[in-house]
Amino acid sequence: MSRQRVIAYDSTLRDGAQAQGVSFSVEDKLKIVQRLDKLGIGYIEAGNPGSNPKDLEFFARVGELNLQHAKIIAFGSTRRIGITAAEDKNLQSLLSANTQAVAIFGKSWDYQVTDILRTTLEENLAMIGDTIAFLKSQDKEVVFDAEHFYDGYKANAVYALNTLQAAADAGANVLALCDTNGGTFPNEIFEITQAVVARFPTLEIGIHCHNDCEMAVANSVAAVQAGAVQVQGTINGIGERCGNANLVSIIPNVQLKLGLECISSAQLAELTTAARFVSEVANVTFNDKAPYVGHDAFSHKGGMHIDAVNKNPKSYEHVSPNMVGNERHILVSEVAGRGAILNKLQQIDPTLTKESDEAIQILEHLKALEHEGYQFESAESSFDLLMQKLLGKFQPFFRLKQYSVYIHEPSVNGINSSATVHIYVDNQESEVTAYGDGPVYALDKAMRKALEPFYPIIKDIKLIDYKVRVLDSNLATAAKVRVMIESTDQQSNWTTIGVSSDILEASWLALKDAIEYKLFKTKKV
Amino acid sequence: MSRQRVIAYDSTLRDGAQAQGVSFSVEDKLKIVQRLDKLGIGYIEAGNPGSNPKDLEFFARVGELNLQHAKIIAFGSTRRIGITAAEDKNLQSLLSANTQAVAIFGKSWDYQVTDILRTTLEENLAMIGDTIAFLKSQDKEVVFDAEHFYDGYKANAVYALNTLQAAADAGANVLALCDTNGGTFPNEIFEITQAVVARFPTLEIGIHCHNDCEMAVANSVAAVQAGAVQVQGTINGIGERCGNANLVSIIPNVQLKLGLECISSAQLAELTTAARFVSEVANVTFNDKAPYVGHDAFSHKGGMHIDAVNKNPKSYEHVSPNMVGNERHILVSEVAGRGAILNKLQQIDPTLTKESDEAIQILEHLKALEHEGYQFESAESSFDLLMQKLLGKFQPFFRLKQYSVYIHEPSVNGINSSATVHIYVDNQESEVTAYGDGPVYALDKAMRKALEPFYPIIKDIKLIDYKVRVLDSNLATAAKVRVMIESTDQQSNWTTIGVSSDILEASWLALKDAIEYKLFKTKKV
Repeated sequence: MSRQRVIAYDSTLRDGAQAQGVSFSVEDKLKIVQRLDKLGIGYIEAGNPGSNPKDLEFFARVGELNLQHAKIIAFGSTRRIGITAAEDKNLQSLLSANTQAVAIFGKSWDYQVTDILRTTLEENLAMIGDTIAFLKSQDKEVVFDAEHFYDGYKANAVYALNTLQAAADAGANVLALCDTNGGTFPNEIFEITQAVVARFPTLEIGIHCHNDCEMAVANSVAAVQAGAVQVQGTINGIGERCGNANLVSIIPNVQLKLGLECISSAQLAELTTAARFVSEVANVTFNDKAPYVGHDAFSHKGGMHIDAVNKNPKSYEHVSPNMVGNERHILVSEVAGRGAILNKLQQIDPTLTKESDEAIQILEHLKALEHEGYQFESAESSFDLLMQKLLGKFQPFFRLKQYSVYIHEPSVNGINSSATVHIYVDNQESEVTAYGDGPVYALDKAMRKALEPFYPIIKDIKLIDYKVRVLDSNLATAAKVRVMIESTDQQSNWTTIGVSSDILEASWLALKDAIEYKLFKTKKV
Repeated sequence: MSRQRVIAYDSTLRDGAQAQGVSFSVEDKLKIVQRLDKLGIGYIEAGNPGSNPKDLEFFARVGELNLQHAKIIAFGSTRRIGITAAEDKNLQSLLSANTQAVAIFGKSWDYQVTDILRTTLEENLAMIGDTIAFLKSQDKEVVFDAEHFYDGYKANAVYALNTLQAAADAGANVLALCDTNGGTFPNEIFEITQAVVARFPTLEIGIHCHNDCEMAVANSVAAVQAGAVQVQGTINGIGERCGNANLVSIIPNVQLKLGLECISSAQLAELTTAARFVSEVANVTFNDKAPYVGHDAFSHKGGMHIDAVNKNPKSYEHVSPNMVGNERHILVSEVAGRGAILNKLQQIDPTLTKESDEAIQILEHLKALEHEGYQFESAESSFDLLMQKLLGKFQPFFRLKQYSVYIHEPSVNGINSSATVHIYVDNQESEVTAYGDGPVYALDKAMRKALEPFYPIIKDIKLIDYKVRVLDSNLATAAKVRVMIESTDQQSNWTTIGVSSDILEASWLALKDAIEYKLFKTKKV
């Protein structure tokens, strides 16, 4: 066994799909497979054909992809009690997925066998052995997932090891040890894994952790330190309960800190975009505080920290953000003080100093806006625009006279809203009414239609995310709301913000910023 | 040193306030202090009077609270270079906070002294010693936070230990070792902490970790295993970059898994509500997947898992949810299949079985709604209501004829929306128009006004959270939106859902469910 290489084994599409609120279409799955293959993931566990007939369509289509790195894994269970493996319908489904490699889970905790499965300890060993022998007779590469292995080992080490032995004797290629309930600590994982590695020196040992103690990443790394060579996990830790072990943290930990090879450096630099991509396809809010890849992972807010990072990044950064495709952010906030804002202002006008009247006024203005509920930390485009406006560098592209929106329910032919936007561009007037199912949609449409004759480039802008946050929930619907809008022109994305006690007005402000930002950038080029 | 007790040291209000998007008012801070005191936290680091003059008001007022457990800590830095401690203005501010205990951070990494602080290694030792000796002369209990201790130890162990020695010689009560950049692994933390514990056997050793490798909880626990007795962290891991070590996971880990005493069992049962309370005050979205306290932490979705948990909870739960004040959730979703839904249906009508026509029809209906974008996993009240409706147990409280909303901008006297709601209650008609700043507000107001004459209890319902999620971002503002509304009557909270391509219609559906749910529950009682 070479310890030089660690294989990443992704189960986002199988165990990850068990997460609350997560479900993948066949198209979603194919998109994610391609992205993970590009990232250098070694195995992609993509479904359980036995429990989900929809997965068969996926397996048929994934075979047509020309994958470079990843082997696709179909996942299933040991044969049912008292029948032969060849008779088991789920195993037949598993074979029909037609993958080169399969993963089979079986029970390693004695109490689970007797109390949950309700069979004998001997029959469970036979179920493991028969199933794997049958799959090996079909020329499959077999990963044996020893469910509840660590709990089982602590309860009855002899039996837990016997389940691995049954799998090994039947020809399993990998023994993956599962901390299914996520209740084990790193020191225990290390010791038990080390014992298994010593007992099965010719087999690859894998690790599969859950995050119920907030230790899944540490546990996975501890197993690698003990000799495990295959790490199972999911992208962003998506998974049931508290989630699976997060491969997005494990890969750089193993690669940058332990010096083992998992994916190439070029692939590692794709980690941030890959993590965000999966989050988007899974429709799970991306965690801004995610280690390595989150927006905040290399963000500096405290005044002193910013000074130190300006002197030497390693003072508050454990690795360099560009190694994982992320970037450093110097945050604009009250706490950061003038230093951070000056950084931004000087990008616009290099002659400005800390003591400039403009800098002082802008700081005051920002504080007032922050007090109102604006948060520019996550809406840098609105912030840029505001700086340009406050420094007098921004010439308005249009002027609003009035907008109005009328909504009625029941709707008529699926239309329940009309919006009228009345603007001036220089001396020319434009008043346009648009209809739609929903007031924000109608308003966005009317604004675009009013502006497009003057600025055709607006056609390229697509709104890709729209988020609303209630700021002071105690006031309920009278409370202020903060709308954040993410837009794209296919080349780049930008985020803008609007705050108001009226959700439509907040949306209008953010939509307006989104369009003004694009127009301003284009004009500058 | 007794190893039996571990002291929780909370820095949510100081280091946590460095997090992107977090800022606390004086009122917020006082509320959180009282809640953490009740939870049994030993120390509450509550501010840095030197860097933030607003904190002085807080310290004046916190002195008037009658705290049972917690000591309040004022936080500051070692004296500046080349002056005496008594001359240092920040130290004077620190004393003016008038706390019994203070924390002082100083540098332990040689390169930080020479390259960031830009002074000599000797002067840094003098700064640590002088500052602590001065504070001890003022009768303070002193925690020394050794910044970057682990990085410093790895670079120059002799110097890192010398900084601790300087603090110890000057009379520090606690030496807290900081993994400031969050880049250290549990095995390193364990070994280095063990060396420090051996070197300073008569002093209390503390640990302060950050989550940049997703290992802050594991690192903190490793330090405790090595002999640390004070654990610094924040509630929910709020903090700069990837966050601080999460006390909400560390406390049950230490108490339930290592068998050490940290807070009482009764206090531990308050952990879930305390974590959610702090999240609300900090206005940070609560992580549903948070270990121990998240909504999903004991949620079971996969059909097989649900069967096993019904047989014995320990099959997929590492601890019992009630120990930490959380509860088990059996989730309703396509994957869960009929078993989970049957659980719910039988609560309404115990005569129903898996094979009942009603159960089969309801399952079909649910699948269609999930396909439309409904997600009942997080909106149990809408789900309950739906079950009641589908089983014919729900008599409508009112019938809508029409609603309409008109919005115009600029607003007039702060009002930009009017909503008219026209309903029937039995044979009586009610048509009411309400005005407001924002269409959702106006609509909510009109609906309540129309219904209140018939159902005065509606006055007790308060909307406390309002969330919007865009379901298919590719369609931008034409996409479907999911509105989730949380309501309270002070006794309990309930969440309802509405899905539509129109945000106002989705809000209407969720508002309507919120009111119907309350009316239905009240009628049943």
